[in-house]
Parts: sequence; structure tokens; C-alpha cells
Amino acid sequence: MTRIRNAALRAKIMPAEQAAALIPSGAAIGMSGFTGSGYPKSVPLALASRIEAEHAAGNPFRVSIWTGASTGPELDGALAKANGIEFRLPYNSDPIAREKINSGQMQYFDMHLSQVAPMAWQGFLGPLDTAVVEVSGITADGALIPSSSIGNNKTWLDIADKIILEVNSWQSDALDGMHDIYYGTALPPHRKPIPLVNPDDRIGQPHFRVDPSKIVAIVETDTPDRNAPFAKPDAVAEAIAGHLLDFFRHEVARGRLPASLLPLQSGVGNVTNAVLAGLIDGPFTNMTAFTEVIQDGMLDMIEAGKLRMASATAFSLSPDAAHRFNAEAHRFRDKLILRPQEISNHPELVRRLGCIAMNGLIEADIYGNVNSTHVMGSRIQNGIGGSGDFARNASVSIFMTPSTAKGGKISAIVPQAAHVDHISQDVQVIVTEQGLADLRGLSPKQRAEVIIANCAHPDYRPALQDYYRRALATSYGKHAPNLLAEALSWHQRFVETGTML
Amino acid sequence: MTRIRNAALRAKIMPAEQAAALIPSGAAIGMSGFTGSGYPKSVPLALASRIEAEHAAGNPFRVSIWTGASTGPELDGALAKANGIEFRLPYNSDPIAREKINSGQMQYFDMHLSQVAPMAWQGFLGPLDTAVVEVSGITADGALIPSSSIGNNKTWLDIADKIILEVNSWQSDALDGMHDIYYGTALPPHRKPIPLVNPDDRIGQPHFRVDPSKIVAIVETDTPDRNAPFAKPDAVAEAIAGHLLDFFRHEVARGRLPASLLPLQSGVGNVTNAVLAGLIDGPFTNMTAFTEVIQDGMLDMIEAGKLRMASATAFSLSPDAAHRFNAEAHRFRDKLILRPQEISNHPELVRRLGCIAMNGLIEADIYGNVNSTHVMGSRIQNGIGGSGDFARNASVSIFMTPSTAKGGKISAIVPQAAHVDHISQDVQVIVTEQGLADLRGLSPKQRAEVIIANCAHPDYRPALQDYYRRALATSYGKHAPNLLAEALSWHQRFVETGTML
Repeated sequence: MTRIRNAALRAKIMPAEQAAALIPSGAAIGMSGFTGSGYPKSVPLALASRIEAEHAAGNPFRVSIWTGASTGPELDGALAKANGIEFRLPYNSDPIAREKINSGQMQYFDMHLSQVAPMAWQGFLGPLDTAVVEVSGITADGALIPSSSIGNNKTWLDIADKIILEVNSWQSDALDGMHDIYYGTALPPHRKPIPLVNPDDRIGQPHFRVDPSKIVAIVETDTPDRNAPFAKPDAVAEAIAGHLLDFFRHEVARGRLPASLLPLQSGVGNVTNAVLAGLIDGPFTNMTAFTEVIQDGMLDMIEAGKLRMASATAFSLSPDAAHRFNAEAHRFRDKLILRPQEISNHPELVRRLGCIAMNGLIEADIYGNVNSTHVMGSRIQNGIGGSGDFARNASVSIFMTPSTAKGGKISAIVPQAAHVDHISQDVQVIVTEQGLADLRGLSPKQRAEVIIANCAHPDYRPALQDYYRRALATSYGKHAPNLLAEALSWHQRFVETGTML
Repeated sequence: MTRIRNAALRAKIMPAEQAAALIPSGAAIGMSGFTGSGYPKSVPLALASRIEAEHAAGNPFRVSIWTGASTGPELDGALAKANGIEFRLPYNSDPIAREKINSGQMQYFDMHLSQVAPMAWQGFLGPLDTAVVEVSGITADGALIPSSSIGNNKTWLDIADKIILEVNSWQSDALDGMHDIYYGTALPPHRKPIPLVNPDDRIGQPHFRVDPSKIVAIVETDTPDRNAPFAKPDAVAEAIAGHLLDFFRHEVARGRLPASLLPLQSGVGNVTNAVLAGLIDGPFTNMTAFTEVIQDGMLDMIEAGKLRMASATAFSLSPDAAHRFNAEAHRFRDKLILRPQEISNHPELVRRLGCIAMNGLIEADIYGNVNSTHVMGSRIQNGIGGSGDFARNASVSIFMTPSTAKGGKISAIVPQAAHVDHISQDVQVIVTEQGLADLRGLSPKQRAEVIIANCAHPDYRPALQDYYRRALATSYGKHAPNLLAEALSWHQRFVETGTML
């Protein structure tokens, strides 16, 4: 049965190539997609082919790509490979696009994910020519049933001059009803309180509104989401999770967290999966998540009866979990809500709900400043994503990382972060496999002592202690002592020799 | 006529020395005070004398001091001079305390001002032994009439084991009714939307509740607030203000700001005063302020009929303006509201109202990361204060600074900030007397070009261009190119030679 139940719109079905031909060079395109789910899979590939053909003919052709967050190889990968992306926001994790950015061939503006939609409405990003949005169906009256991510789709559909839809029949039709699209946002001075007080609250409607006259093309697809498998938690991830679960038990025992904890937010990866697995075996019940993405571990927690519900803006599942979800989506229907990312990440809501934020990092310095984006201060890895939305407004802001990377050649704890995404005020707990540093209420020097003692790898701890001791003796100021000539020398050594050791 | 209209409480009046004797060594003390207004002026002096006597007798005696923000010489100055402060939060601008911090003799934790009260409630800061709070009077039924600042007073009164009040008759009794104390805050999972949608809204009550059994002492005073005079705007400040007013006109003309602008937030200082003076002469009317402090320029704007009302948590007036205000407070009564700082600075409200944030800085780097606290990365100047609450959540986040300091020996634009308080995502506009850089929607390299061209002083511009060009050629990554061995060399040069040149 067709997913396009509106007869007038069925008339706009066309091949992807024909749809891609409607996009002019220089256009800003708002695409769907968030952590590899719900991104358009057909039109971007066709656009990449067209761009390659134009380039081969000697014609310039590049576009600006705005999304929810990361997408898949058929979008960022294909367009970057074609040298088709002039400017990209707000988040990228595609390796080909990353290489183009880091070789200086592509402009990239990584943004707080909650701020993309308001900034687009304010007009600072310029006009949006075309929205290319994957949906899982179209109702008889022409409303759009969202797909496996929401991201900024509401905004792209509202502000774009023209709209190209991809209707993906691979997506479970049981997705219909899981979405909550809030239409109450506005620009100041017309903003009102967002009426959400629990992660379970529904404040919007299940479908996107759309002006049918803006829809210029509809393309049918049946391609799976990216669904990258996650690495299984290893001993390091298990150790990090163990320290963190001890911390939660301790906070509950002290009466500083409720027994059901507070709404969980977490980044994606094997450390997070180890934490979520640990929560299944732990003493906490009736938990909730208010986060960006629903990952494998959350489905497991729901099935184990530990997680009451999860609110997010996207799925980010392994192939196995995606298959399981698609086969049994009806079982999860009343336990999952997908929202626009300006709501899933909204500072007002993160602060009100008091989320427990758990995010990864590239490096932290001895004073607790965190770099989560720039390797050696200059090479972008992915982007800040939603980490800043959550870290600053959480009731407890936790950063987790193995204490070393690259087989021990990089220390996650350094004298000074070569780039800062999260200032020390927003970094309350740092956890490595070595231990946990609870930094709340500590001065910089107190933070340095506990971070070096609890979190640094033994291979680097003596050098950090030596740096700190000498800084304390000779620094220009002794509030947050530094040695300016050495502060970035570990990074410099890595660039020159391949190791910080 | 006495300001203490409750007979039972009048029985607790005593000299400051006797009240100070009730404070034990090691205590955490929550004091009133915000930008030199409304701080206790008598008990801290008596406590400092007591500490000096104990030290002279060979007895250790130190305390932890929590406040709203900065206070006055009778509090931070006297206690720091007596070596009486073990730990200080969340903000200090006293020169003696600063010196103790920077020589490593005093621990200091500078915090986002909106987060102090919630963190204290969460219990991370430990128990609060004593609140020492200035009020302007006590009603017949024992409620407390706040003084010229609110800060964290509601929280200190609620959570302290015992309370010492200073009743200051120097404060205008027309203050009564200007305050709006919101009693609707809670810890998660019990938080509700804060029902404020305009800067004018009153959502609380005019007086503090207090448990009279906790009041152990009341001290009467008549000492003026610190009321430091501000330097008159000079040509540099006028030039900065000029660029900024041009920007506002441009944004209004483009339809990106309403003709009455949006609620203004501004730091304190002569650049701000120049901006406020410029707004009196400008085309904007019916303006509002939603900010931390009410300063001279805002009273002028109200008198000129340009500012409809101002919401803040404190006054910060020059002696002349304070005199004028005290003499004519009734004229301002319906145009000023003072709130707890967790409300004046609340991210939920700053985001909802869409404040125009205008803050100062120590240095910005070529990518737009801002250091507003640490001179040469290690010496604390004041603290982050509320700048992070506003900068991240504002509709436009502006940072203003002269392009050089110390007679040209320090450049405000550097290759890499030696400390970061505001990440580039939170820094949308930088203004110096050289010009204005609108960074919204720009990639790092695009930002570098406009910051160097528009904001850097000509004495430093060629060196910045040279650094950037060489970084672009050889950096490890070319997303935000750097030269690790040189990134902090300007700071190192200043420490070694006294100039960055």
C-alpha cells in the first residue's frame, strides 16, 4: 500500500534525478537527518551525480547544507566527495566531509543544536532555498508523517521556498504517533513558556503541517538508515561505567538525586552503552530519558522495565536494534517520543527537568575545561552538537572518556585544552577508567589536584603533577597557574612526533 | 522612625561586634551584596577585627564567603586583608581579595550567577552556617524589606542555620515595593515553568519570608553603598558605542530586531555608559532592560522617556546617581523591579525574552573565543559573573572592548585566548573602537578574517594576519588553523617583557 495517501501529492512523484535538477547551484538546502537516521537517501545522491557532471563540464556547482545533525554516506559523504558542499552546518561526522573541512576545502559552522532553528528564523543564516526532507508517509489530508528523526524538519518545511520530500517505506509505519511536533515557538518578543514539565508530556501534534504549493517533488525510497553498529563495551568502557554507577548510588544515598535518578541525556558510543547496560543491572527504577537520540541501550532498558520512557529527536540504532525496532515498533509506541531538536535540546527544558548530562570529550585540562571537538586545537572531529545545550543546564554535567587515546599516545588529561567547548563551570564530573573527579564547588587548584589524581593515566600523571607543581611556583597568576611556554607543548609534541609522551 | 517595626525582633538588636561573635571559625557564610550594593557593612568589619585578634593570638580563624556577586571594601576588602577568607564564591572584584586569590592564598570558585542558588539547594556547596543579609526594613509582621540588591538573599535566608540581619536606614524607604521575590523555584523533578513573559511581569512578592527563630542578631547601620563613580566615556568608548548603535539601526532596518529593540542586558563600565547614552539620542523608544544591574545610564534613559522599565537584581550607581535615586525613588517605583539573581539571570527567561546581551572582555581570539576573566590565562580579574547566563541564551550576544589595554601593550585580539569563558558559538558580535565584527553564521576562517580586519588595532593587525596566514599554511588541521608553538606566545612575551608588541 502506498505511503502517499493524498492524491494531489501523488501527482508530484518523480525520480530522484528529476527532483535534484530543481536545485540550483549556490542554494542553501535544509535537509533532514540526525545521527544517521531520517536523512534523505536518494535526492542527495542524485544531486552529487549532477554536481560531478557539472564539474566535469567545467561548471562551478556548490551548495550549502543545513541539517539536524549528522547524516549518512549518501548525503554528506556523496556531496563532499563531489566537492559539492560550500558551507555546512550544524554538525558533521562523515569522514569524507571531515577531511574536506580539515584540509580547508569546505566551510563549517558547528552550532549548539538547540539554536539552529531560532537562528534560521532570525534570518542570520540567509534564505533557505530548498528543504529536502525524508518522511515515513503522507496522510490523506496532506500532512507529513515524520521519519526516524525530527531534527530541524519543522523549521525547514516552514521557511524553505520549495520542498522536496522523500517518502521512505523502509521506515516502520508504526512510527506514526510517536512524534510530538510543537508549533508554539516564536521569535522574541513573542515567546511563551514551553508547557512541558515531564519527559512524557506531549505538547504538540503527531504530523508536520506543510503548504502543498511549496512541494515541488516527491521521491519514493526504501533505503535503510545508516545504522552503524557500535563497538561492544570493552574493559575501559566497563570501568568508566562502574565509576559512574557508584557515583549515582552515592548521590542517591546522600539524598542529592532521587531513586529514579533524573532524566538521562547521553551522547552516543560504547562508553554510553556500557553505562546504559550498567543501569539495567543497577538499583534504579522508573527512569526516564530526555535526550537527543534513542540508542540500543535505551531499548534494552525499556524492555528490562527500568526505563519508563525516552524523549529524543532521533533514533541512533545498530542494524540489529533497528531490525528489532521495525519489527516490534508497536511495543515501544507509548514509551518513545520524538520532538524537534529545538525542544529536545531546549535550555529551558533541560534546566527545568534537571537532566543528568553524560557526554564524551577529546581532552580535559587540569582545571576542568573540556575540548570535545578539535583534535590538537585545529582539526575538527565532529562538532559541539547538543553537548553545550545539556552540559550548561543539567543538574549534573558529566564528561566521560578513556584516559588515553591512540594506543596511549594521546592523554585525555592535558595541561591546557587546545580548544575549549565546555568551560570548567559547565564540567562538574569527569570520569575515566582510572576514576571519577567530582568537581562541584571546587576552586581551580582543588580541581587540578583531583583531576590529576583520579582521572589521568599513570603514564601521564607524573608529568601533569610536575607541570602543575612548576606552574604553582612560577605562574604569572596563581589562581589557575599555567606555564605559557609549555601549556600546549604536549599537543605540539604529538604533531611533531606522533605521541604526547 | 525605626525601620524595625516588629517588636519581638527589636529585642534582637545588638552591636556588630556581638553579632560577629556568633560566627564560628570554619563557617560558610552567605552574605548579601551584588555589584557594591546591599551588602552588610558592619558585621563583616567586626568579624574582620575579630579574626585579626584571633590571628594575633595565634589562633586559626577563616571562613567561606558566599555572596550574590561583588560587595564592598567593608566586606571582601576587610575580610581578605585579615586573611579571613578560606574560600570565596561566586564573584569578586575587590582588589585585596583579588591579590590574595592570585598569590594563591585564597580559594575562589567563580560561577554562573544563575546557578549559585540551585547549587546551594542541591547541597554541593555544603551546609550554610550563617546568613548575613542587609535589609532596608522589617515589617510589623516580621517580613524583611529587601535592600538595594537581592542577589541570593532569598536562598541564604531559607537555607542558613542562623541569620544575622543588618537594617540599613541609609537605604531609601521608597525601595519597599520595588522588589519581586519569586518563591516558585524548586529542585528537579519538581520544577515548573517560570511564569514571566515580559520584563515588567511581577511573579512574586515584595518581601522575604523568614523564620524568626533563626534570627540570632539584628544590627542597625546607616552606611552608604559602595557607589563607585564610573569613568566618563572617552573617545574609545564613544566609538564603540557608535559602531554598536549603527548595528542596532541596521538590524531594525533589516527587520531582525523590533523598533523598540529587545530587553537590554549590559555589564557595568564606561563603555556600557556610552552605549546607554547613545541610546538616549537614538531612534529607539519604549525599550526595556532585563539585566543584572541598574546603572546610571538606565536612570537617565528612564528620565528621557526612552526606557519603559528595567528589571535587575541590584543597583550599581555612582554616588551622584545614588543620591538622586534616594531623593526621588518614588518617581522610579513603577519602572524598576529587583529580583533574585536566579531569576534575573535565568537561562529560561533570557532565552524567552531574547535579551540583547552586551558584555565586556579581556581578550578575544581570532576565532571568536572570549576570555573575560583570566589575565594571561592565570590571573583572575573578577569572574564570569552572569555573562555566561546571558551570552549563551541571548538573541544577540555582543562583546565590547577597546582594541588594546595597558597603553597599547596588550592587544584585545590575540591568536589564541589564554583562557576561554565564552566559546565562539556564544559570541555573535565583537565591537572595538576599530569596528564591529558580525560573526553570526560564519565558519572559523570566515570569523578570523572579519575579526582581524574589523576589530584588531592597527599596531597588532599585521602580526595577526601573519599568524593566521602561516597557520593556514601549516596547521595540523585547517578548520581552525593554529600554530601550537606560537598560539600563546603573545601572552608569554607580555609576561616576560611587559608588552605583547
